[in-house]
Amino acid sequence: MVEPPHNVKVLRLSEEEASKVADSLWYRHVDNTVIAVAQDHETKDVLMVANMNREAIIRTLTTGMVHYWSLSRKKLWLKGETSGHYQYLVGFRIDCDGDAVLLIIHQIGNACHLGTRSCFDQGDIINLRLRHEEVENSSAEFHDI
Amino acid sequence: MVEPPHNVKVLRLSEEEASKVADSLWYRHVDNTVIAVAQDHETKDVLMVANMNREAIIRTLTTGMVHYWSLSRKKLWLKGETSGHYQYLVGFRIDCDGDAVLLIIHQIGNACHLGTRSCFDQGDIINLRLRHEEVENSSAEFHDI
Repeated sequence: MVEPPHNVKVLRLSEEEASKVADSLWYRHVDNTVIAVAQDHETKDVLMVANMNREAIIRTLTTGMVHYWSLSRKKLWLKGETSGHYQYLVGFRIDCDGDAVLLIIHQIGNACHLGTRSCFDQGDIINLRLRHEEVENSSAEFHDI
Repeated sequence: MVEPPHNVKVLRLSEEEASKVADSLWYRHVDNTVIAVAQDHETKDVLMVANMNREAIIRTLTTGMVHYWSLSRKKLWLKGETSGHYQYLVGFRIDCDGDAVLLIIHQIGNACHLGTRSCFDQGDIINLRLRHEEVENSSAEFHDI
């Protein structure tokens, strides 16, 4: 298992404290989950968005390694279990209505299974448009307001 | 209406192009939505997480002003309509499976209805814990790995 550098402080809580945090969330999304946004602690890039159920929250907070609930496979998922691309928890924030969490993480390798650092790296609509169409035929523009 | 500074380039697409983008998404979340993460284009702070249905995507991309689908009120919602805290669209990225979008935005005022810049500003679990318990009674720690 690849470990984070020594200067990265991994956040871990006791079972009791993790349960309190888990109890404070509002699991109103698909499969009784909250939305989890993983943000790189150094670059502040948003690396991925996924879902977490209560168990994923508890496992993440007690181990310091990010776990998600897979909507497709309907199972708990330790990020990096097969790829080695683990996510170490550095910070954990809850939004104002408790249905989303912000995971501040140290990412080992790439977050995306397609081989890019972030799951959003290939999906910039401006780049997609330029790839699919001639720029001069496009009516879309950036506008100054 | 408060407008963004002149050096902020607001992204707007034609109806046709916005429809193509909307068609490429996977609306698999509650109420046939995708997850939307709003990130400040200057600080890279994550300001809020919400849902967007197809109409919210189209309205956002064609007007350059962020619209969401409110899960609670079951209606389309122009962010800032009542508060004046509009979000201008600067960039738009789609994740690898198409069920989440990253909105790069220029935020007018505060993103959170509680009066903080970000919906995650009050929810740092370390701060929450320190507020609720004596530090010396807490078994939770930051661990170096």
